[in-house]
Order: sequence, then C-alpha cells, then structure tokens
Amino acid sequence: MATLEAVLDTIDKNIDVSKERLFDFLRIKSVSTDPAYTGECQRAAEWLSNELESLGYKAEVRPTPGHPIVVGHAAAKRKDAPHVLFYGHYDVQPADPLELWTTDPFEPRLQQGKEAQEIVARGASDDKGQLMTFVEACRAFEANGGLPCEVTFLFEGEEETGSPSLPGFLAQYKAELSEPALALVCDTGMWNAATPAITIMLRGLAQEEVVLRGASHDLHSGMFGGPVVNPIHVMAKIIADLHDAEGKVTLSGFYDGVPELPEEIAEQWRSLNFDEMAFLQSIGLTTVGGETGRSVMEQIWARPTCDVNGVVGGYTGKGSKTVLPAQASAKFSFRLVGTQDPKKIVDRFRAFVRERLPADVQAEFVSHGASGALRLPFGSEPLKRARRALSEEWGVEAALTGCGGSIPIVGAFKRDLDMDALMIGFALDDDRIHSPNEKYSFTSFRKGTRSWARVLAALAA
Amino acid sequence: MATLEAVLDTIDKNIDVSKERLFDFLRIKSVSTDPAYTGECQRAAEWLSNELESLGYKAEVRPTPGHPIVVGHAAAKRKDAPHVLFYGHYDVQPADPLELWTTDPFEPRLQQGKEAQEIVARGASDDKGQLMTFVEACRAFEANGGLPCEVTFLFEGEEETGSPSLPGFLAQYKAELSEPALALVCDTGMWNAATPAITIMLRGLAQEEVVLRGASHDLHSGMFGGPVVNPIHVMAKIIADLHDAEGKVTLSGFYDGVPELPEEIAEQWRSLNFDEMAFLQSIGLTTVGGETGRSVMEQIWARPTCDVNGVVGGYTGKGSKTVLPAQASAKFSFRLVGTQDPKKIVDRFRAFVRERLPADVQAEFVSHGASGALRLPFGSEPLKRARRALSEEWGVEAALTGCGGSIPIVGAFKRDLDMDALMIGFALDDDRIHSPNEKYSFTSFRKGTRSWARVLAALAA
Repeated sequence: MATLEAVLDTIDKNIDVSKERLFDFLRIKSVSTDPAYTGECQRAAEWLSNELESLGYKAEVRPTPGHPIVVGHAAAKRKDAPHVLFYGHYDVQPADPLELWTTDPFEPRLQQGKEAQEIVARGASDDKGQLMTFVEACRAFEANGGLPCEVTFLFEGEEETGSPSLPGFLAQYKAELSEPALALVCDTGMWNAATPAITIMLRGLAQEEVVLRGASHDLHSGMFGGPVVNPIHVMAKIIADLHDAEGKVTLSGFYDGVPELPEEIAEQWRSLNFDEMAFLQSIGLTTVGGETGRSVMEQIWARPTCDVNGVVGGYTGKGSKTVLPAQASAKFSFRLVGTQDPKKIVDRFRAFVRERLPADVQAEFVSHGASGALRLPFGSEPLKRARRALSEEWGVEAALTGCGGSIPIVGAFKRDLDMDALMIGFALDDDRIHSPNEKYSFTSFRKGTRSWARVLAALAA
Repeated sequence: MATLEAVLDTIDKNIDVSKERLFDFLRIKSVSTDPAYTGECQRAAEWLSNELESLGYKAEVRPTPGHPIVVGHAAAKRKDAPHVLFYGHYDVQPADPLELWTTDPFEPRLQQGKEAQEIVARGASDDKGQLMTFVEACRAFEANGGLPCEVTFLFEGEEETGSPSLPGFLAQYKAELSEPALALVCDTGMWNAATPAITIMLRGLAQEEVVLRGASHDLHSGMFGGPVVNPIHVMAKIIADLHDAEGKVTLSGFYDGVPELPEEIAEQWRSLNFDEMAFLQSIGLTTVGGETGRSVMEQIWARPTCDVNGVVGGYTGKGSKTVLPAQASAKFSFRLVGTQDPKKIVDRFRAFVRERLPADVQAEFVSHGASGALRLPFGSEPLKRARRALSEEWGVEAALTGCGGSIPIVGAFKRDLDMDALMIGFALDDDRIHSPNEKYSFTSFRKGTRSWARVLAALAA
C-alpha cells in the first residue's frame, strides 16, 4: 500500500507533464475513415510505440490491411504477477463540420468548464485521453519500482470504422495475444462526473450504405419531371418505411433475440435515478422519442435501433437548382442487443430495400462492418476487485452500466481469444464525442490515471 | 425577299466567326446561384452590352438587387416597322458535378455528334447559344442594310434562380419596355432535330427549401440512438408522404385548377408520334413513372409535379460515421399547370410539413420563388407568320408544343407589360441542359440564326 500511495503521489505531481504528452498525441490528425489522413494514422501509431519504448517496454508498429496496430509488452516487478491486456484506439472521428468548432480541433487547449477544467480537441475523450490515463498510470509505477501486473498493450487505429483489420490480426498473433488472462478496455464512460462505472453491456453495430441510381445522368426537372423516377423519393420511402408509428423497426425478424431486461439489472438501473429531462435538455430536446413506452436509459443501453447517419442526393449547394437527380445515397446503422444476428439483419435490410425498388432503380450496397452485442459476466473476481478500487478512488460505489455504443474488440476478445474484458472509462455524457468541440474533463484525466493505478494494484493484490 | 436571301447568305458565310463570338461568351462563368460567381455575371452582362454596341445599338448594363440586366435598342430601316422585344438570359446553371464533364465546362469546344457537330460547354444550349442565334441574325441584317423590325433587347442574369429581380425591373422601366408590341423568347426547344417548334404552354414553378432541426448538435448514434429524434427520418417521412401509390401529389387541393387537355391540343400532340421508349432509353430508363395512366408527353407538358431536387443530412463523406444528425434539409419544387395558384400550394406545402413534425423538431422554410403556369393564344397573326417562316427554313411544318420547364419572364410580360410572347428555340431534348457535358447542335446554331432572320422578315412583311 505504501507503493500505491507513492504511485498516486507521482501521478498528481507530474499531471501537467502528463497533460503535455497527451496534447502532443492530440495534435496528430489520425482520422481513420478518410484516406487523406492515412499518414497521420501511421504517425499516431509510431508516437505510441515511442511512448512505450520510453518507458523501457518492447513495442512495435505492425502493419495490417488498414491502419497499423501497436503491440507492446511490459514485465511486472513480480514473477507471478497477473498478466493483463490493455486495449485502446488511437484513431478519431472526422472533425467536420469544422465551422462549428470554437478552435482548431487538432490544437488541444485547456478551458474552464462548468465544474472542472476541460481538455478540448478531437479525440480528447474518444479515445486518446482515455488511453493515456492507463499509459500514465504505468509511467507512475515505473517511477516507483515497476508494474504490479505484466501488461500487453494493444492499440488499434480502426475503431471508428468498425475495426475491420482486428479479427485477422488477433488470428495472426493469437499465441502472443491470448497469454494475458484479462483484457482492460478504456473506451467507456462514468455514470456521472462523481460516480465511476464498469460497463457490462455493449450494443452491437451493423452499418450499411445504400446507393440508388435511376436515370443515366442528372436531368432538368422541368424538361423531365413527372414520368421520370426520382431516386430521392425512393430513398425517402425506404427510410420512412423502416419504422412504424410506435417507433419500432419494421424489418421482419428484427426483434428476434432481443431480451427484456432481467429484473436484477433493471433494479440496479432504477437505483441510479437517471434524470431523463436533464439528459434531454442537455442536447436541446424535451421529449423522449423512439420506441413508445421505453425509457431513455433502456432504449440506449438495452434496445436495438435503426438510424440513418447520413443522406445525400441532387443539388445541395446554396440557392436552388431545378435538377431531377440520377442518384441518392444513405448510410444506415443498426444498434443491436442480446443475440440479434448482425448478418441476418443485414440480409433482411437488403431484401427490404430491394422490395421497394420501382422499375429502373438499382441499389448498390456497401457494408461498413457488422458485429453483435455483448453482455459480460458480472459476478467475477476481477470485476469485484476493480469495482472496489474505483469506489476507493472516487469515494462512491461504482455503477454497473450498459453502453449504447459498440466496442467490437470486446466481442473479438471473447470470441477469438476466450478472454473476458473489464470496461472501465472516465468519459462523461457531455464530452461531445463524434461532435464539434469534443472535450475530456481534466478530472477524468487525473483521477482516471489514479484509478488505473488502483485497479492494477488491486488485480495484483 | 432579295434582302432576306442576302442576309441568309451572310449568316452562312460568317458562321465560323459567329461561333467564335459564342465561344468567347461561353468562357464567362456566369453561374447565377453561387455568390462566388457574381463578378462573372457582371462580366457576361458587359460582354453582351459591348456586342450590341459593336452593332451600332444603344446598350446599357443596369443594376438590380441581384445580377445586372442588359437593355439595348436597335432602330429598324423602315419607320413603320413593327417593334419587338427580344429576351434571353446570360446566366447558367452550376457546372457540378465537375468530375462528370469530359472537358472543362467553361472551355467550349466543337465535337462530332451522332448527326451533327456539337458545341460543348455549360450554357451552350441554355441559354447563351440560343440567345446568340438572335444577335447573329441581327448582325447579318446590319451587314445588309439594317433590321426589318425595331428591336429592344432584354438580357437578364437570374433566370436560373427564378428571376427574382425582373418584376421590379419591369415595373421600374415599364414605359420603355412596354413599347414593343410582341416579345420574342429564345429559351425553348425544337420538336426534334428536323422539326422546329413554337411553345404555347409553359409549366409554372414553386421552389421551397426546408431545413429540419432536432438536437442542439450532432450526437454519437450509439450513446444517443433510440430515444433521440433523427431529422433525416422526419424528412424522409415528409418526402414519402407527398405522393400516393398512383404517383399523385397528396397535398390537399393540389389539383385545383389543373385542366384536362383540350381535344384540339391532344390531337395535334398525338399527331407528333412521340416515341416514349426512345425518350426513356435516351436517359437510361425503360418504364413510364409518375402518374399512373398518363403518357410521358402529357405528364411533362400538361401535368403538375412535386420533385425533391436535393437532400442532405448527417455524414456524407467516404466511409461511415456513427452520427445522429442534428439537421436535415431538402429542396422541393412543384411544376404547375393550368390555373394552379403557386401561393396557395406553397402555403399548403408548409402546412403539410408542419403537420408532420414530431416534438422537438423545428422547420425553417426558404422560398426560392413561385410563378404560375402560362398558356398562350395560338390563333394570332404573329404566331401564324412565325410558324410559316420556321416551316420554310426547316422544310417541315413547325409544331405547336408544350414545355415542362418554366420561363417566368413570359408570365411577367403578359402580367406586367400586357405583351404576348412568341417562344421559339432550337434546343434539342438531348442537349443535357443543367447536366454535365451540356451541348448545342451546330445545326441549331446556324439554322436557328437563319430562322430568326426569316421570322423578323416575316413579322415586318
């Protein structure tokens, strides 16, 4: 315990230097979905590898069919220490719309928020800031005699695009990567600014882009409008048909494998006293939408969705253009829960679209990945220890929560490496991840780093 | 008649020089809808004014709240000659999508088409090429003793954006512009490459842009998807609801004032033996869409429509982005016929949209202009003379046709100046106006110029 206190002291004393290292990392424009930033993704991977090497660890930037993956290894100070795998991702979402950022998304800065200082930058919260809480905790251990656990580091660069290269990578390096007994994943959030959380449920995600094509080229809407099919109208009908009046998704068999919430979990969630109105007001809304009769929390953590993430067709510039467009496209995503089968849902969706194509309209489908939902066992010994460690740092019992987002790697760890994962993160709901002016509470950064120190110590106790 | 023959000879001898003048005009990027091209619109107006002055005419570039209008005056060689007003527009549609052009849209070139040489450039057909057929006909008269008619020239630069400044301009210069007895408008097409046409019906046009706003900012579709309203879904429902299964527009009262076709016109149109399949195949289609049971020709010339000209919302770049968008927008246009009231239809449309807004979604409406349909008297003396002149040039009886597009100025001439208009043009259906690789048949340019010489002579006979 003397060592842990020393480690926590080191973290607090060096927190400004830690922040500067994070700022360096945030300046790298590692947007994974846009080929224009391929070089920046490579640079982010190399930056991380250098960080690990600066701590005396072995580290490598390994190529994949997409962006590279960083693997590192750190020994523990004790031979019989537990071995954990820490996962994070260095890629970020696109920064657009750029005009809505107060300052350059890739020039991090500290600002005074309502309750704490905040780090503002693309990736500040998702996931560079979170990832660095763990690395900085390791750094503090190294300054105090070494790590209590053996650690394998795994940093990928394609999380924001569905981690297409990861399954192959895990298969290729299975022997090496399946050595650890437990995965630690830092890509989730706190219950609120005062209450830490461990995430025990994740929604799955299937993403499909649809391009509809009609006439061979854009036409004058006066000279051709009437008898000529308009692909925007066809796309609108498809989108409109996907939900019924009660907000349910109309794909046949969509709710196969969607369980009602177990009473045990429902009770714990109710005890969290979630404030729906405050949640809605924080994003400018007043009314619970979606499925009639389902609460906000249930819908986000435990119900599946279908959302159109983007649509475009015809003339979208300033003013008007009397064009009858030849094409319309839309990006669809399905959030999945329980045992919903991503492949079956994609197949049903494509059939649904095809059934709605009039004569002369062709559909092209582009898959952007599909992975099922995940529910973790929540009576395990590591979970109990981590929950206690978090409760000690924050002075309040850590919540066991769901998460509306997807972390496909957690499913891959279970499926490909037979490894459970502890999902612990320090993001807040108002971090504006994927949105302009993304931020990460400086308290999350400091106490997150301290939390990891406590969790590593607890796992090794 | 000796003079007319000499004028026609002059036209033929100088046609290559005429073409070079048109090419100069086409190089000016006078895109009226995009503020980035305001200077180019000014330049196009000055270029036209200089052209008229080079013919010895008085000409002025006059300011408007939008792009300037050119007014010119040319005397006739005889004192008692009829006085006509010639209208054309120097503005063009945006050239995008640029990547679909084979060559630079503003670097005109001549290419060998299937049946004739073609001039390829944005505006080659709509309306710079057409406008210049009249100016070049005047030039040929000047080389042969002068014009048979007195001519007032009126060239605007906002036709492609609904001519917002024209009504005010006509009011301001009413005394001057209402002196001519007849307007000549060259912004319409031939029946086919061999058969000239005079257009006697035009559809009206009402254009409305709708912006829907939900949450205060874009959100992560995992962290918020489910209970949070998606404006793209709301827009899709609105668009889908606008047509019923028979292709009819569902706005209440939309068909008030839509007449069935008079048998006299229906019979003339049937005699044109329009080839629906060839028309559809020319644009990559095989099936008549739109209103069930209505022919292509009837739908385009004599039936109203509702089309979405553009839609955009959320992430539309490469790859995927798990965003729940805060906004979606769409540009709607209504083609109108008979006595449909544009104002009433816009009001009904806005009410239709508002009725479909769920809680927390606001709609903003932007009007891009609204004008009613027009039907011209088709037993008048000038119409008979012009029809005969065209028939002589082309060796086949000129057709009396409808037009699916809008030429708001023709309505304004009637309403504000009490002046009928002869709509004669030489565009072809496959000119790709408003689309990439717009072209104008060189035959249209040469014989169009000759046709105007014959029409001017006939009106003065």
